[in-house]
Amino acid sequence: MSVAVSLDQRFGPDRKVRLPEPLVLASGQVLAGLEIGYETYGTLNPAADNAILICHALTGDQYVASLNPRTGKPGWWHRLIGPGLPIDPARHFIICANVLGGCAGSSGPASLDPVTGQRFAMRFPVITIADMVAAQTRLLDHLGIARLAAVVGGSMGGMQALAWAAHHPDRTRAVVAIAAAARHSAQNIAFHEVGRQAIMADPKWLGGEYPADQPPAAGLAVARMAAHITYLSEEGLTSRFGRRLQDRAALGFGFDADFQVESYLRHQGLRFVERFDANSYLYITRAMDYFDLAEPHDGVLAEAFRGAGRAGTRFVLISFTSDWLYPTPESKRIVRALHAAGAPASFIELESPFGHDAFLLEAPEMNRIIQGFLAAHG
Amino acid sequence: MSVAVSLDQRFGPDRKVRLPEPLVLASGQVLAGLEIGYETYGTLNPAADNAILICHALTGDQYVASLNPRTGKPGWWHRLIGPGLPIDPARHFIICANVLGGCAGSSGPASLDPVTGQRFAMRFPVITIADMVAAQTRLLDHLGIARLAAVVGGSMGGMQALAWAAHHPDRTRAVVAIAAAARHSAQNIAFHEVGRQAIMADPKWLGGEYPADQPPAAGLAVARMAAHITYLSEEGLTSRFGRRLQDRAALGFGFDADFQVESYLRHQGLRFVERFDANSYLYITRAMDYFDLAEPHDGVLAEAFRGAGRAGTRFVLISFTSDWLYPTPESKRIVRALHAAGAPASFIELESPFGHDAFLLEAPEMNRIIQGFLAAHG
Repeated sequence: MSVAVSLDQRFGPDRKVRLPEPLVLASGQVLAGLEIGYETYGTLNPAADNAILICHALTGDQYVASLNPRTGKPGWWHRLIGPGLPIDPARHFIICANVLGGCAGSSGPASLDPVTGQRFAMRFPVITIADMVAAQTRLLDHLGIARLAAVVGGSMGGMQALAWAAHHPDRTRAVVAIAAAARHSAQNIAFHEVGRQAIMADPKWLGGEYPADQPPAAGLAVARMAAHITYLSEEGLTSRFGRRLQDRAALGFGFDADFQVESYLRHQGLRFVERFDANSYLYITRAMDYFDLAEPHDGVLAEAFRGAGRAGTRFVLISFTSDWLYPTPESKRIVRALHAAGAPASFIELESPFGHDAFLLEAPEMNRIIQGFLAAHG
Repeated sequence: MSVAVSLDQRFGPDRKVRLPEPLVLASGQVLAGLEIGYETYGTLNPAADNAILICHALTGDQYVASLNPRTGKPGWWHRLIGPGLPIDPARHFIICANVLGGCAGSSGPASLDPVTGQRFAMRFPVITIADMVAAQTRLLDHLGIARLAAVVGGSMGGMQALAWAAHHPDRTRAVVAIAAAARHSAQNIAFHEVGRQAIMADPKWLGGEYPADQPPAAGLAVARMAAHITYLSEEGLTSRFGRRLQDRAALGFGFDADFQVESYLRHQGLRFVERFDANSYLYITRAMDYFDLAEPHDGVLAEAFRGAGRAGTRFVLISFTSDWLYPTPESKRIVRALHAAGAPASFIELESPFGHDAFLLEAPEMNRIIQGFLAAHG
């Protein structure tokens, strides 16, 4: 996407800001100062009411609609965001920030602790989804945005969008939460725990103190492989790979990748370690596992959205039929809670064979829904 | 279970036999001699027609209904097999053998190669489910059993039971296949591949050449954790663990096991490495991934069962509602193929919240079905 150059250095692609004010985290720990890597596209209008915050998923980053400098690939949501698309820099001022705890420019375990000058590693405080959102509020303050026209996210991005409405309803005019959840289930936690154990079992992890050029790549690759299966559906795997063999006519009777699905998974694992920090993976998965919007309200999810109901925050939730990671019943549960809290909320389940990953793929119906929802809100 | 002492040393608990004849494997490789660890309960009748072979799952062993000498726990199917139970040593001559490739007494990667006197490690030939069954036919020859009254197995045990009918229909009067499959799906292969990569990523694996007292425990534990999630259902995990915390009143904001489900999974991983060989895990998962009864018949599963149809082999298949590893549609597919092959086959889907593991748990309906099926067949 080509982006008009702004004279204001706060705006534009590939920005980074240091916000020196300490951030008190959900754990009670204090982060002395905050760095945020982010991008903006489009122009903030004089009323500052056309801002849309895009929240990224576990392994995403701020390069949502521009060429990713680390992978050389198009932005991860270039099918939704761009000229002529539902989220359009011609109309919207679009912001996407690397999450707190991440490894693409925002404060995380790979950052230097401003107090000691050393890399945080596992001394980085454990963070939550609410902390990620709190960091984003600081960025909005910096950008001069009091209230968001919308917060939009899929997967962990959808969790953040819901957390925006729960914790900052007066700053959140609308929420688009796709393939999301209001809490992590036991199965979600279990898969993440496998990934963390794989990383921490790698001797190169060294308690988190690995040199940047000698990461625990094997453990991180295994973690990614396990997670990747949960992003795809059984039917998607079957139609894409089935039992087809990789570069051979017959079974190899060995331990090389005989099947295409093995080769694909290995490739996913290997590529991932080139772009992601292992400690960040630990911290972000932990934040997701800790996520349960109802927990401070004795398990009553509607209570988490009382403020959103009062503020008139509007919601659309989208799920996909074959998503077994954050399946349709969880989105329905959220919508019931929103209705109970008096918040206008609509819900659509879309047919897709592509599992959880569907929200990142070509999804014309999803685009139409988001287009209509945002147009209705202005 | 108390077992009558037999004067014939071939019969009884905790047996081991060495069968020197070479075994030609599906790969074309030859195994020079075969060791089989096995148990028998009950008495082979004079007609030798009351023998029931029990086939174990991936991490099972021959201690199906006796105290397991390695874990000190009751046999893994003590709820189905024993006095007064559907498979009863008072009526049946019950055999259970450790699979080829296993690590509880049968030839596997931890065995000594009789040719070199060295441990096989990764020089053990890659085996298939058909090879496991071929090894069992040798054991039956040794025991003087021409034809089995029934072959009974769950999970990989069910695969073996189906393979018995496919490859040795004249020796298989009846088959009970529970929570089974006639082929491994792309998702099944993917999960196994994660486990194998976890083991092979452990530096202690050493290309399979680890000393017996220094196994790649961390990698094997991660493999077990990933697999264990697939044995349980989402609803089972939720009802058993939900988001309940482990030995604490509030989130710990660290990387210890905060949630009960984490603690449980870690425990499963740690216990497993005490009783299972990492190389065996590689070989047996590979055998399962290679399993596809229709593959030699251009994908037409019914063709695999033509011989069983001719021999009059009878089948019962049982699946569980919440089993997503080998789900109900796969059992139905097998039953359709059996019917197409002219084999009498019945199928029952049982309600259970316990996922794939349901077949190992208290399952009165399953027991009643097996009891009736075996009684009908004498």
